[in-house]
Amino acid sequence: MQDLLIIGSTAFDTIITPTQRRDYIIGGSASHAAYGAAFFTKTRLCGIVGSDWTPEHTKLFTDRGIAVDDLEIRPDGKTFFWMGEYSQDMNIRTTLETQVNVLGEFSPNLTPASRRSPYLFLANGSPVTQMQAIDQCTELKFVVADTMNFYIASQRAELLELLKKIDGLVLNDEESEMLTGKKDIFAAAEQLCGMGPRFVIIKKGAHGSLYFSPTALFTLPAYPTRKLAEPTGAGDCFAGAMMGYIAGQDATDLQTIKTAIAYGTVAASFTVEDFSFDALKRCTREDIDARFREFQEMLRF
Amino acid sequence: MQDLLIIGSTAFDTIITPTQRRDYIIGGSASHAAYGAAFFTKTRLCGIVGSDWTPEHTKLFTDRGIAVDDLEIRPDGKTFFWMGEYSQDMNIRTTLETQVNVLGEFSPNLTPASRRSPYLFLANGSPVTQMQAIDQCTELKFVVADTMNFYIASQRAELLELLKKIDGLVLNDEESEMLTGKKDIFAAAEQLCGMGPRFVIIKKGAHGSLYFSPTALFTLPAYPTRKLAEPTGAGDCFAGAMMGYIAGQDATDLQTIKTAIAYGTVAASFTVEDFSFDALKRCTREDIDARFREFQEMLRF
Repeated sequence: MQDLLIIGSTAFDTIITPTQRRDYIIGGSASHAAYGAAFFTKTRLCGIVGSDWTPEHTKLFTDRGIAVDDLEIRPDGKTFFWMGEYSQDMNIRTTLETQVNVLGEFSPNLTPASRRSPYLFLANGSPVTQMQAIDQCTELKFVVADTMNFYIASQRAELLELLKKIDGLVLNDEESEMLTGKKDIFAAAEQLCGMGPRFVIIKKGAHGSLYFSPTALFTLPAYPTRKLAEPTGAGDCFAGAMMGYIAGQDATDLQTIKTAIAYGTVAASFTVEDFSFDALKRCTREDIDARFREFQEMLRF
Repeated sequence: MQDLLIIGSTAFDTIITPTQRRDYIIGGSASHAAYGAAFFTKTRLCGIVGSDWTPEHTKLFTDRGIAVDDLEIRPDGKTFFWMGEYSQDMNIRTTLETQVNVLGEFSPNLTPASRRSPYLFLANGSPVTQMQAIDQCTELKFVVADTMNFYIASQRAELLELLKKIDGLVLNDEESEMLTGKKDIFAAAEQLCGMGPRFVIIKKGAHGSLYFSPTALFTLPAYPTRKLAEPTGAGDCFAGAMMGYIAGQDATDLQTIKTAIAYGTVAASFTVEDFSFDALKRCTREDIDARFREFQEMLRF
């Protein structure tokens, strides 16, 4: 079991679905990723929050053994805030409000222990900040990054530089098209592999994920949970849990990555069953493993 | 190995994709289904064609061992014709022309051998014709039907009657919503199971398929072929190959159905690689099995 450092956004979200509304719940790419990863390995969370963040919020992470030495608390500002609303069929998400707040000043200065992490997951965030984390880590074995439409549009040059420094890239199907101009998911993945990473994982939401490298191609469906509450953070949890499993195994061969993707799929299937990571909060590693075995069995023929 | 009777449309298609056009190629739900099924069991094709159908067309089926005693050839009319065009990303299909022709007079009078088929696949077609086939078969063990938006809209009452007579229903995600009014795929499948069939298989195209019954739920992805030419007939081939495998095994337990769905997925992945069933024409059962094993391995973690 090896340390996994996760860096990205820590946020408060207000989320509206056709049937429910929740105000000021914990969100953010690094939060969801770390919560998912902590089922599998020693996880370090690097992010920035403001004066509205309380010890109770921190305790949610430390209760799961997540190291928060690199969670910077800025008393002079407020935590990044995002407010979004889902459409009737939950397929379309509209951003109603974004307050960047202290995230705009995020410039991590990692603790010595975090700098020694061999595994690094760069959750959704600015490629500038993502590169700062890479530059500070001295013993990296395996680095995977996530990104999103906002940074593809606004920091493309920095993102293209980052791609040269990572082992794997995780992004969704719309983002893969945005970054490459290619609608065909395989062609997009192939082009992305030519831009730096050894492999690309394209997240397709309810339709599962696709792994692509110059030598391997496979796809897994999403676990078919019937209890969809709302999907915010599912993609972050997917990638975080995947990286947690990889760091926990301290192995990066193809079969380990595939098992890791399956565990990520299972962890994400809990995320969508409630708001924030409330469903995962009720889970033990045994619950994850039980659903993992069910997922294995589902795909055995 | 048991006989499988397949009844549905036999057609000529003209298909336009962003890069190619093919005129007057073999199409139709029963054609594609029978061609897929014939890899696995003794298949009987019931359909109707016109004077434009030649012995060479028939030979495509008999070369694969498909019995064509129930393929009615009407010299006084022309074969059902469909012309469609795919959008740039192949996701949207627009019908440019439909000539019903002899299909409008299709009223099967099955041969004695076909009436004794224990397995029956009612490929996409009028529920009136589908019901006629059920009524003529005397030794049925297992009946699965496919349907489509046209019949859901125009012959809903007849379709609802048919649902009470079948073991399984195969349809795509849009059609399941159209038939139930439910956008949620699980809710739609559950409602459909309350309308007659023991199970429902929802086809999601490039996103695979979902099996639902009151006691089981599983999903399989599509086989990720990179050689997409055009997808016409893939769903018919999927269901036909699935039924062919089931009849070939003479078993309808859940694990057999799951394996059958996987074989259907693999057969359909060849269909999309060329026009009509040209890619499958180049396949042997060994080619199907090789890709099936690759698909199995892809989903093993």
